[in-house]
Amino acid sequence: MKLLEERILAEGIAENQDVLRVDGFLNHQVDPILMEAVAKDFAEHFKNEGITKVITIESSGIAPALLTAKELGVELIIMKKQPSKVLYKDLFQTVVASFTKDTSYELTMSKKFLDENDHVLIIDDFLAYGEAAAGAIRLVRMAHATIAGVGILIEKTFQDGRAKVKENGVNVYSQVKIKKLAEGVIELEQ
Amino acid sequence: MKLLEERILAEGIAENQDVLRVDGFLNHQVDPILMEAVAKDFAEHFKNEGITKVITIESSGIAPALLTAKELGVELIIMKKQPSKVLYKDLFQTVVASFTKDTSYELTMSKKFLDENDHVLIIDDFLAYGEAAAGAIRLVRMAHATIAGVGILIEKTFQDGRAKVKENGVNVYSQVKIKKLAEGVIELEQ
Repeated sequence: MKLLEERILAEGIAENQDVLRVDGFLNHQVDPILMEAVAKDFAEHFKNEGITKVITIESSGIAPALLTAKELGVELIIMKKQPSKVLYKDLFQTVVASFTKDTSYELTMSKKFLDENDHVLIIDDFLAYGEAAAGAIRLVRMAHATIAGVGILIEKTFQDGRAKVKENGVNVYSQVKIKKLAEGVIELEQ
Repeated sequence: MKLLEERILAEGIAENQDVLRVDGFLNHQVDPILMEAVAKDFAEHFKNEGITKVITIESSGIAPALLTAKELGVELIIMKKQPSKVLYKDLFQTVVASFTKDTSYELTMSKKFLDENDHVLIIDDFLAYGEAAAGAIRLVRMAHATIAGVGILIEKTFQDGRAKVKENGVNVYSQVKIKKLAEGVIELEQ
């Protein structure tokens, strides 16, 4: 996705071999025009899949996921992160480890919003080790819904996320693939 | 804002005298069509104010704020909540008490994205006691930017939020005003 690649190369900040900061246009300050272009690309890619809902995880995925849902004419579900392990009877819950932040959290979704007639698209900003995507897949399947795919803005192909998602029998479509990061260096896959 | 009022009356769940759940169309499942209507209403109200950025607080305000920014042709800044009190030199930080959740958090914003030439619109989903809005106002002013107003989807007029924002010299525009909640009861101001 050319427009997103250009922004990453122009404004992304590679802090080290693991961390790419995209605070200026995606995570902290958000460019609505870029988000709309990203959303149109996802919608074009998944338009024939019969998507009934778009799913994302709070909070960096909300902006692109909302506009993708709008393009596809469906509603968005925002899965919530909660720190505590309290169990609620009206929620699906699963533990997600975050390698990037060296912590874990409880990912939750209300039981009300998905059922076996739903076929969903999961959208997230980054794919690194795939733990968040795998958690989202678990919650969708607890609701007996099916999954058309995972749509990612920025995939770090030098980490294991794609394999983790594929293990779960789900395809990944990523708009930009990064094969290497180092301080001040961003190498894209062509 | 008639469309939002109708959805609140049809699908909102008043749990008790304080809590209105709007999980089905705003907070957890999000209706992009409704969000676009809400955004157009905010944009219409603030169109002559010379807004340069829209600001919101993660994560329930992101959807309406993103579309408002898009309508106004400006970028969105998402203020972040962090639990710890660690100080970072590249962030503005302020403590926000949450009466609704009986806790407090550190609200943060990068120093990079606002300066004295900015005139911002702050968008949030709920106005209750006004602590979050007042925190956002403090951060905007730390950046020496000015504030056109606070745009709120749902104001609980029986709590003190509006007074708290006005104390700070900022105007509130709210789309729906709720004057009373009780279990199963939602009373709107006309």
